[in-house]
Formats: sequence, structure tokens, C-alpha cells
Amino acid sequence: MSATEAPTYVVDERNRVKRRHDRGSYDHETVHRLLDAAALCHVSYVVDGLPYCTPTLFWREETRLYWHGSSASRMLRNLSDGQPACLTVTHLDSLVLARCGFNHSADYRSVMAFGRARLVTEPEEKRRALVMMVDRFFPGRTAQLRASTDQEIKATSVVTMEIERASAKIRAKGVADDDEDYALPIYAERLPVHTVIGEPEACPRLLLGVERPANLAGYLAERPLEEALAEAYAEAYARG
Amino acid sequence: MSATEAPTYVVDERNRVKRRHDRGSYDHETVHRLLDAAALCHVSYVVDGLPYCTPTLFWREETRLYWHGSSASRMLRNLSDGQPACLTVTHLDSLVLARCGFNHSADYRSVMAFGRARLVTEPEEKRRALVMMVDRFFPGRTAQLRASTDQEIKATSVVTMEIERASAKIRAKGVADDDEDYALPIYAERLPVHTVIGEPEACPRLLLGVERPANLAGYLAERPLEEALAEAYAEAYARG
Repeated sequence: MSATEAPTYVVDERNRVKRRHDRGSYDHETVHRLLDAAALCHVSYVVDGLPYCTPTLFWREETRLYWHGSSASRMLRNLSDGQPACLTVTHLDSLVLARCGFNHSADYRSVMAFGRARLVTEPEEKRRALVMMVDRFFPGRTAQLRASTDQEIKATSVVTMEIERASAKIRAKGVADDDEDYALPIYAERLPVHTVIGEPEACPRLLLGVERPANLAGYLAERPLEEALAEAYAEAYARG
Repeated sequence: MSATEAPTYVVDERNRVKRRHDRGSYDHETVHRLLDAAALCHVSYVVDGLPYCTPTLFWREETRLYWHGSSASRMLRNLSDGQPACLTVTHLDSLVLARCGFNHSADYRSVMAFGRARLVTEPEEKRRALVMMVDRFFPGRTAQLRASTDQEIKATSVVTMEIERASAKIRAKGVADDDEDYALPIYAERLPVHTVIGEPEACPRLLLGVERPANLAGYLAERPLEEALAEAYAEAYARG
């Protein structure tokens, strides 16, 4: 890679976007932007030859992904060299109603990231991960909380995966009919889909005088969730 | 199963909700309701021992799931007895900010469905699937469209999977702190997350006089997507 080239993930048979390859990207910037705008991912792994797909919250640090090892017992049996995993994030942007069935579609932005998952066991790495698990979403929040107990730290499994391969796939063109079909008297539309924040619901058991801290100001009702998440991400990692 | 018992999916080691088993359900009603309120799923499968997690649109018919076989070449190599697959649907309902890091969480409703995927090849089953692939989301729409060509039908792969096992997992309790932590002067909240429909964007190339058909009336701006999807599902299958 020359100094002027943007960093990209390696492309091979595993992560190459096969169908509609015009929708594929492999550069770090595109892949990371889509990851950092999400809280939820789906992680796939193989146990006894069978596939499992588990939803979980996750975050990125450089080219590593982290998530909560809630299914550690089922998922992370082969710890020696890591358990192969695929972590996928999808932003659904629209449903697309075309003039024929074949061109019905959806706009979306997705990332598939491949690597080998391993439990975070090194104490300093785990300590940092438990902070970022919260602060990546709510920068500075850990410092405002009751400190974690040793028992809590022990009870929390954190999984990490160095991204070995990744691809982003983006469809963002709305209605795309065959040329001759535009002459037909058939209704077609793009139906946008937005994931937004609702009105924050303060815990009814808050002590008198406890106010919403300023570091949550980005999480405003009606705001697109991905916008708040991307902003929080940038803020959290600017703090270091 | 006695006549008065509600139908449920078989529970075994594969689909039993292990961590937080109090959040698990296996009855058809709960599982199907969560599936039918979604358009997007993530499908996991194993190729050469490695996991893949692919986002796709899907729908249910009785205890069978259907999706578009976009990755058929990579995914469906073992057609003889079906390729093991896990199809997961997740509705993210909130982010939960607690008084300690350990109790930070999210409200969600998810389903994991397990079975063996196979390509739909029988002509009548495929014809019906191509209709429902559109009409499940937009009841009656296929009849309003330009008919599919033989080439389009040939170019569309439809995958189906009989649900052999399934589990639903639901967290819906917002902030849940340790008893003694409620006495701390720390802010906590439930931050709701909603996936909603935006303002429909009619295709700019519509012919003059072509109006939005009445069967799309459920897809209104600001409406929760899952509500419109569940309603469309019920309507589509009431039509038969």
C-alpha cells in the first residue's frame, strides 16, 4: 500500500461481494463509518458444525470489534486460536416498490466483518473494554457511575475479534425499474425507514435533584439513532 | 400436545435460551408475532466450516420461512438434505442507562429460528413464493404490477426453511438496578428506539394520473414500521 492510498481490508473469496458487486466497498473508512453508526450487530459462529446468529451490542476500536460474551459458554469453546466469527451490521434505509415484482427491493447499508473471536482475559484490556462498552455509547459516563465490583467484572465476558476481512454493501438508489417499465401506468415509490430515538424516560426512582448529565445531550428525541451513535463514538475516542 | 395447549416449538440444547432463560419463549404465537412484525432478518450458515451472516428480507408462511436466495451460490451447496441455517430477527426497543456499568443494557425482542434451508424449485411453490415475497409486505400488489417474465422467475432464487426449533428472547424492563444502587445520586434512564416509516417518496417518473393505490395506506409517515408490517402480514394471509 502506498502512502497516498486509503487503507482497505484484504479482499478474497471469503468477503468479496459476489452478487451485485457494484454495491461492495472494502476501504476502512466506509466499513468503519457503518459500524460506528450502529449499536446492534448480529454475530454468527459455528458450534458442532451448525450455525448460530446472535444479536448483541458491539463497538469498534481501530480494526478490532468488541461485544458482550453473553453466550460465551456455547460460543467460545475453541479459545486456543479463536473461534471463527462473522459480525454483521445492517442499516435498513427503505423499502422499494417498483413496477414489477423483480425490481422490488430495499435500500440498505451493511457490513460483514470476518475474523476469529476470543475472550478478553488480559486484565488491563478487559478493564478498558468494560469502560468503552459503556463510554463508546455515552462518552464519559463510566466516571459518573457506581464503580464495578470485582464480582461484576468477573461475571462479564468480553469478546474481541480482529477484523481480518470485511466488506460493506450499499444500495441507495430507490426505485430502479427496467427502462421500458417507466412507460407503464403503475405506481412506484421509495418508502423510507428511519430508526430514531424516542423521548428519554428518566428512571422513576431517581433521587431528588439528580439531573440528566450534559454528556447525554446528543440523545435527543426524534434524532436518528445512527447520528447520535456516530457522534458519541467520535467523542468517546477523541477522549482516548 | 393436548387440544387446549398452545402450539410451541421443540426445545433442546440448540435453541434453549441459556443466559437469562427467564427471557425465553418457545410458543408459536410469540415467535410468529415477532417474525411477522419484521422485514429484515439475518441468516447464518456455514461454508467450509466458517460462519456467514447475511442480512435479507424474509417472510413466514405457517412454520416455514422464506427469503431471497441472493447468495445461493455460496450458501446452498448441499441441496440434497438442506443447508443448516439460523435465521434471526431483532427488534431493538431501547438503550438502558443504569447506575452501574454492569446493569447497562438494552430492551429488545428477538427470535432465533433453526432449520435446514433449501432452494424452492417446485414451479407452483416458487410461483406462490414470488407473489408472497411482494404481497406479504404490500397485500394485493402483485396484481397491480407488470407480470414477471420467465427470465425474471428463473433469475430469482427463493430459499425456504421449515422451522425445526425456535426461541424468542424478550427484555422489556427498562432500568433494573441493584436494590442498593437506587439510593445513589446517579442519573439513569431508558432511551427508547423506534423504527418508523418516513414520508413516502413517489417515483419522480410516475405517469400523469397514477395515484398511490389504497392497499399502501397502512404505510404512513411516522408509523412504526413493525405495526405496518404486522398489519400487512395479517391482511396478506387473510386474502390467502
